[in-house]
Amino acid sequence: MEKQQLLYEGKAKRIYQTSESDVLWVTYKDDATAFNGEKKDTLEGKARLNNEISTLIFSHLAEKGLNSHFVRRLSDTEQLVRKVEIVPIEVVVRNVVAGSMAKRLGIEEGTPLVEPIVEFYYKDDALGDPLITEDHVYLLEAATSEEVESLKIQAKKVNQLLVELFAGIGVRLVDFKLEFGRTTDGELLLADEISPDTCRLWDLETNQKFDKDLFRRNLGSLQDGYQEILTRLGGQ
Amino acid sequence: MEKQQLLYEGKAKRIYQTSESDVLWVTYKDDATAFNGEKKDTLEGKARLNNEISTLIFSHLAEKGLNSHFVRRLSDTEQLVRKVEIVPIEVVVRNVVAGSMAKRLGIEEGTPLVEPIVEFYYKDDALGDPLITEDHVYLLEAATSEEVESLKIQAKKVNQLLVELFAGIGVRLVDFKLEFGRTTDGELLLADEISPDTCRLWDLETNQKFDKDLFRRNLGSLQDGYQEILTRLGGQ
Ligand SMILES: Nc1ncnc2c1ncn2[C@@H]1O[C@H](COP(=O)(O)OP(=O)(O)O)[C@@H](O)[C@H]1O
Ligand SMILES: Nc1ncnc2c1ncn2[C@@H]1O[C@H](COP(=O)(O)OP(=O)(O)O)[C@@H](O)[C@H]1O
Ligand SMILES: [Mg+2]
Ligand SMILES: [Mg+2]
Repeated sequence: MEKQQLLYEGKAKRIYQTSESDVLWVTYKDDATAFNGEKKDTLEGKARLNNEISTLIFSHLAEKGLNSHFVRRLSDTEQLVRKVEIVPIEVVVRNVVAGSMAKRLGIEEGTPLVEPIVEFYYKDDALGDPLITEDHVYLLEAATSEEVESLKIQAKKVNQLLVELFAGIGVRLVDFKLEFGRTTDGELLLADEISPDTCRLWDLETNQKFDKDLFRRNLGSLQDGYQEILTRLGGQ
Repeated sequence: MEKQQLLYEGKAKRIYQTSESDVLWVTYKDDATAFNGEKKDTLEGKARLNNEISTLIFSHLAEKGLNSHFVRRLSDTEQLVRKVEIVPIEVVVRNVVAGSMAKRLGIEEGTPLVEPIVEFYYKDDALGDPLITEDHVYLLEAATSEEVESLKIQAKKVNQLLVELFAGIGVRLVDFKLEFGRTTDGELLLADEISPDTCRLWDLETNQKFDKDLFRRNLGSLQDGYQEILTRLGGQ
């Protein structure tokens, strides 16, 4: 497998074409951004931590029968994934009220939800990734109603598996963001990354944060938090 | 019927108790506010225009079999309504993309919708009346799922009747906001007001605006626009 031209550079990753048309080469970056790019920094080691954690999580999901774009880890900061056409919806699953939901609804951060809640945000940096309803999804032609059902079912299944995985290492999965994409045969496949950049992860006992809120809210070393997650997951 | 103590003063109306426990006395105000109270003015004649238009619209809906809180007009600026417990949801129905939907989704104002879209906003000035999903409605305990179904059915029925009414007077009903409340016997009843303060109304031919956007966007005399609607509806 050979890394070819850069297809897309995002805020956290670079995506390259490879010699195989349906396989992409992902390199994680040390960049951290928040508030739609307003806050920025380079945090040495973040690329490796997210690559390793995402690898462990996608591998765990695969073992439990939930497929994703993940093909294999290549190096400390690189992995191969299946190329998909990304659905422009950020699928957020919440088990505990936090972040934008706490602000939007005026509910205290940390309030547990009786049932997980799935939300859709329109993946559009220029619009600030707004919350959207299912009707908006159809109006934007972002997904069909069959796809919306699949997004919700897969998101809830991922949640079930990850709540369990994290509970086993003393971590509360507060919320997380997923992206999905269409394969050439029209399947909706879990894509992008699952890492402390895209999850809220709190220590089950102390509520200590191990996720990107460390950076967003200046609460301490992001790398220490992510390393704690990687170590507890059995990585190094 | 006798006007008793002031129960509530809102941005556009005062609500008084009456000698009958389930009847309220509404007086419309000449105040105009926009952007959650940031823009304010007193516009002489607005109270009368909204009272008269709301009266005509609620009467039309009643004739067509759709009940509301409206009891009867008392004067230029006053009406009697049934007292309800207001559901803290602003139910918005849209036939054409405009306002916050155009901004949120990056769709040009004026784009017609193939099907009307119903949205829920949490009625909370401190939170800026945020868009919410059905799951949020239940989390906030703002309404039950039976009530949500009733809100949607009633909102769509009101839309059907008002699109027709306004088309008959050469006006496009772009979008509007409804409020509903619970009667003592648990029925969900259309309440509040339906006026150019709560609807977007455009001339069918010229797209001239006859609604509160005249004030929000400094497009000309609000009173002239509202008077045009009142006159076309057969009032004076
Ligand atoms: N399997 C895949 N196929 C194609 N694109 C993908 C895949 N997985 C992730 N992407 C996209 O790669 C881009 C780069 O990732 P990232 O740096 O996180 O971007 P962003 O700044 O949009 O968050 C994102 O737009 C993401 O949707
Ligand atoms: N039938 C009713 N029973 C009780 N309250 C009502 C009824 N109809 C409207 N209201 C409430 O009266 C209040 C006053 O109206 P308004 O001045 O428009 O207030 P706001 O500033 O909240 O828009 C609103 O909170 C509205 O929900
Ligand atoms: Mg990303
Ligand atoms: Mg009002």
